[in-house]
Amino acid sequence: MLDLRSDTVTRPTAAMRRAMAGADVGDDVYGEDPTVAALERRVADLLGHEAGLLTATGSLANQLGMRLLVDPGEELLCDVRAHVVRAELGAGAALSGITTRTWQSEDGRLDAEAAAALMEPDAGPYLVSTAAVAVENTHNFGGGTVQPLAQLQRLRALTADAGVAVHLDGARLWNAHVAAGVPLAAYGACADTVSVCLSKGLGAPVGSVLVASAERVAQARVLRKRLGGGMRQVGLLAAAGLHALDHHVERLADDHARARRLAERLADADPAVVDPSRVETNIVVLAVDDAPGLARDAAAQGVLVSVLGPRTARLLTHLDVDDEGVDAAAEVLAKLLVTRR
Amino acid sequence: MLDLRSDTVTRPTAAMRRAMAGADVGDDVYGEDPTVAALERRVADLLGHEAGLLTATGSLANQLGMRLLVDPGEELLCDVRAHVVRAELGAGAALSGITTRTWQSEDGRLDAEAAAALMEPDAGPYLVSTAAVAVENTHNFGGGTVQPLAQLQRLRALTADAGVAVHLDGARLWNAHVAAGVPLAAYGACADTVSVCLSKGLGAPVGSVLVASAERVAQARVLRKRLGGGMRQVGLLAAAGLHALDHHVERLADDHARARRLAERLADADPAVVDPSRVETNIVVLAVDDAPGLARDAAAQGVLVSVLGPRTARLLTHLDVDDEGVDAAAEVLAKLLVTRR
Amino acid sequence: MLDLRSDTVTRPTAAMRRAMAGADVGDDVYGEDPTVAALERRVADLLGHEAGLLTATGSLANQLGMRLLVDPGEELLCDVRAHVVRAELGAGAALSGITTRTWQSEDGRLDAEAAAALMEPDAGPYLVSTAAVAVENTHNFGGGTVQPLAQLQRLRALTADAGVAVHLDGARLWNAHVAAGVPLAAYGACADTVSVCLSKGLGAPVGSVLVASAERVAQARVLRKRLGGGMRQVGLLAAAGLHALDHHVERLADDHARARRLAERLADADPAVVDPSRVETNIVVLAVDDAPGLARDAAAQGVLVSVLGPRTARLLTHLDVDDEGVDAAAEVLAKLLVTRR
Amino acid sequence: MLDLRSDTVTRPTAAMRRAMAGADVGDDVYGEDPTVAALERRVADLLGHEAGLLTATGSLANQLGMRLLVDPGEELLCDVRAHVVRAELGAGAALSGITTRTWQSEDGRLDAEAAAALMEPDAGPYLVSTAAVAVENTHNFGGGTVQPLAQLQRLRALTADAGVAVHLDGARLWNAHVAAGVPLAAYGACADTVSVCLSKGLGAPVGSVLVASAERVAQARVLRKRLGGGMRQVGLLAAAGLHALDHHVERLADDHARARRLAERLADADPAVVDPSRVETNIVVLAVDDAPGLARDAAAQGVLVSVLGPRTARLLTHLDVDDEGVDAAAEVLAKLLVTRR
Repeated sequence: MLDLRSDTVTRPTAAMRRAMAGADVGDDVYGEDPTVAALERRVADLLGHEAGLLTATGSLANQLGMRLLVDPGEELLCDVRAHVVRAELGAGAALSGITTRTWQSEDGRLDAEAAAALMEPDAGPYLVSTAAVAVENTHNFGGGTVQPLAQLQRLRALTADAGVAVHLDGARLWNAHVAAGVPLAAYGACADTVSVCLSKGLGAPVGSVLVASAERVAQARVLRKRLGGGMRQVGLLAAAGLHALDHHVERLADDHARARRLAERLADADPAVVDPSRVETNIVVLAVDDAPGLARDAAAQGVLVSVLGPRTARLLTHLDVDDEGVDAAAEVLAKLLVTRR
Repeated sequence: MLDLRSDTVTRPTAAMRRAMAGADVGDDVYGEDPTVAALERRVADLLGHEAGLLTATGSLANQLGMRLLVDPGEELLCDVRAHVVRAELGAGAALSGITTRTWQSEDGRLDAEAAAALMEPDAGPYLVSTAAVAVENTHNFGGGTVQPLAQLQRLRALTADAGVAVHLDGARLWNAHVAAGVPLAAYGACADTVSVCLSKGLGAPVGSVLVASAERVAQARVLRKRLGGGMRQVGLLAAAGLHALDHHVERLADDHARARRLAERLADADPAVVDPSRVETNIVVLAVDDAPGLARDAAAQGVLVSVLGPRTARLLTHLDVDDEGVDAAAEVLAKLLVTRR
Repeated sequence: MLDLRSDTVTRPTAAMRRAMAGADVGDDVYGEDPTVAALERRVADLLGHEAGLLTATGSLANQLGMRLLVDPGEELLCDVRAHVVRAELGAGAALSGITTRTWQSEDGRLDAEAAAALMEPDAGPYLVSTAAVAVENTHNFGGGTVQPLAQLQRLRALTADAGVAVHLDGARLWNAHVAAGVPLAAYGACADTVSVCLSKGLGAPVGSVLVASAERVAQARVLRKRLGGGMRQVGLLAAAGLHALDHHVERLADDHARARRLAERLADADPAVVDPSRVETNIVVLAVDDAPGLARDAAAQGVLVSVLGPRTARLLTHLDVDDEGVDAAAEVLAKLLVTRR
Repeated sequence: MLDLRSDTVTRPTAAMRRAMAGADVGDDVYGEDPTVAALERRVADLLGHEAGLLTATGSLANQLGMRLLVDPGEELLCDVRAHVVRAELGAGAALSGITTRTWQSEDGRLDAEAAAALMEPDAGPYLVSTAAVAVENTHNFGGGTVQPLAQLQRLRALTADAGVAVHLDGARLWNAHVAAGVPLAAYGACADTVSVCLSKGLGAPVGSVLVASAERVAQARVLRKRLGGGMRQVGLLAAAGLHALDHHVERLADDHARARRLAERLADADPAVVDPSRVETNIVVLAVDDAPGLARDAAAQGVLVSVLGPRTARLLTHLDVDDEGVDAAAEVLAKLLVTRR
């Protein structure tokens, strides 16, 4: 099977498994796991923040980051297709009482002025006050869009003036970093809380890290336990994360090149389906007449794609799909697109 | 003082006070207040719904209506300037776990197709499902905008096809009814739950009514008690509502005419401030350089206006401002606008 | 009908209705209703607190008081039959995320040492911290029990030492005050937040007041609006409260005497049903074999009693039941008890 | 260091690490991890339930179990020292709106009749309805107390009659099973939802399993994702759980014998500190004058104990403490107790 549904499906490599098997561990609820501490320290340093916190999932890292910045009944602004409002099952509202309003965008690309225009900070005792803005980089449902650093910096300036905080959902920030050549710390400087994921492009089996100030991370540690996320000898998973940071960041460029090539092959088959020039990282979004039908037919030929809507399919390249795999998938999908054209 | 801040500021008339003083009452927590029952019945009939429930505020009626349609973690879609997300202090998220995404609009006017394009019903176990859409008629922060019946009907059709419910925030539905000449029941037919307010244009001191199916109203009665809204001999307030329905609906046409005249007078002073042709009901929104300054200067001359933002002021006409009052307010404000021009 | 189900069923007197009809009012959401301000001031003064806030119901006053003292995920301790955990539909947990543990008691009577023994203040990052203790005076489901002032003072001392706050649910604090001859301010000194109800023994149609520090009341005003409890020209109801404070406090002694006489009459009929010496205020709890059956038979003869459980019935005396009414009810009930014995 | 603070501190054995390193994995959010499926199946079978769900922590398994049985605003009853109300940071209230009342007990031992006496099922539209009762076996803060099967069965019968559900917090159910010789399925038959922990006595690094009906587990899968607990290639952790089930259940008898011996040695030093006959499993609770002082002095000599309160210390035996370790710890602690006596 060529599984292009998501970059979450990667299995740990043999080297990563060895790193895990030999990890030094302790009880992380008591803050005593050295491998966890090393991972948290390393990710915080990379992003230029004071401290980090390992979480079981990217959703948990996002929810903690948002909750640190927004009290119940206060407002978070974000893109209408942001993962935090579309793909986390309403957790922000259901668990933390965070109310949201959204802006619309092309491909999820941030327009800092437009986003900031929605802010209503310190709105008084009758109106909802905006406490934070969330940005996603790369933007998943937008098609792996890299947010321009200048827009993030502009948003940082506008929000800071208004006393509004910023959460950066960096589940695929590694991809943005590699694709745009922007240092991670430059992204980190644009936000108060940042989540990054180890189990997507980086190929670790489980885990995300939230970074923020030391004080906020201490609060997040308590909130994480309330959410049932305080794990024990989790250094075994942290070891996979450290291994991924050593070995799987720069190689994301390969995923990006493969995604572009895949898009080009499919555009050759049907130019209406995808514009390869918009494929910036490892995500290819296809506009098709019948996404479930395409997925079904492709699966029958050993290629798995994901369905985002009745007319939207999505492919992701990742650690477990090499050049040959991408070419094989492209061939299957191109034929199907030609047939359906 | 000429108080144009809101139509909520009206004081009960002498006749309304007499109606209240003579009201037959009982313990409404036990469902035994005959005047409350009469009011709930009457409003439900006007809107063509099975049952009604008296609430202390419009916010409470809206929150109950939304909660009936949306479970915790599910989604409500609405306008980015809707009262339910801007002016109810995040209650939907904080109290009911309702997550929201928003569309943008001109003057709050509904574009049914654009709204429906955001729907994601039955989105499965990974994504947030849209459970309901909320529409506000007239649209307060949009400037008293009357929603076209055709758009409401179109939204009703699109949502019904998708299995998505509709809540109508009809705080000022009476104004829409009078301005557009549309029967209340025609509006009522476009939604599963409708809130209407008795204490704005209608001039009652306190109270709103939620209408819905009998089953939903029974649920709302329990939810209302949980929210601390189960009042006892509240027929005294219901009597004011019944009086208002008898005497204060058709006269809203006067408020509308006065608001239009006020806008015209101010546009004469400074055409950039307001376009009178967009004043459809009793709300006049002014675009000014310094809204707090204008409000302060007007107050010093006995005219109270409300400030919606640094450059946005708002005037409302209502039961306690007659022709003479409007003319006097217009004179004060026009002079201030000319000076500031 | 002789309605002894609750003291909430009283209808406003003619004098009270006149007071309401003539009340000076304003928009209380803007803090501009003079009658509301007078009532809030007066109740705060009576209880020796800085400020007061009018609410539509006692449940709302309790929920606000609790929320001021307890953050989401923190703990409130209370009696296992306290109104706040039994009769407010889970609002503390459902709306404010307040977790509760309970102590057991005889007749709801506070044992300060036993209550304080449950406290776990500042329990650290792994355990739930106790933030507040709630006490109810008089204790409704305990049978109108008056809390001894010494116990309240002892609880105040024990909690203060531990940094734990106290909420006093004083829905019927007026009854305790009259029965025990304890000044209201002495009770008020034992708590950080106090709710008192105007619509039970005092006979107003609607309304309760929460008192606390000025800072806390300012917060409560915002929370009240979020809960849909920010009413407009509500001075009409506040006027009833002021009238009740003038005319209906001292007369509670009559209710208490009538409740005692009623209990004595029923104990004469069947001593197992009630011990008159335990009737301290206006509540008589009956232990019977078949409470629903007794209620049904009594209703058939024009006497309404309330059913608290399969073997527990409850009678309350109040403003709308005079000596004659109590005697008539006693006669009906005594005969039924003799028959059933 | 001899770490007796908790049985959560165990590190995976070499054999367990090997089992993890070789685990077959997949994306468990998509339900495609074969090792996770095997673990869930096996635990469900052991407890006689239809299905299982792996969670990152015991708290998460408990919270999901409770939420499946109790809707927001409904009531869960439990012991006043239950883990679910004492040690999960108020999650039941804060995240799920579950309101709680508690009973008191000796050593956390269930008295089914006393517990059931608090139930108020189907309490109508004015009162809180009891939806579930939670029982903990063994009872952690009670001192590792094994719940008598007859009491669990009696509770099951009483609750079933009342239409009330039961959640069993079986974090240490393995210990009860081994100590009492009761089959796991006999315990499982007494509850609608059961959580069991793999990372305490069983020695796995991370993980718990919730079992319930297939329908409930499907709901829990969605709720788990909302709580940020949907992990990807988590078969690596599941493999540790399977290994623990194969190798670490029966050996709990050793932990129990060691805990008893430890208690006997300490009772020899000071009989007031502990009654060895009450040590039923792997937990020893000590009554001392100064628990923090004892913990500090013991740590200085290489023995870690946990502090539950100013006068309560706790020791646990587990996989990483053998006979020699227990004897060494006993010697250190006995000397300290004699000195302090």
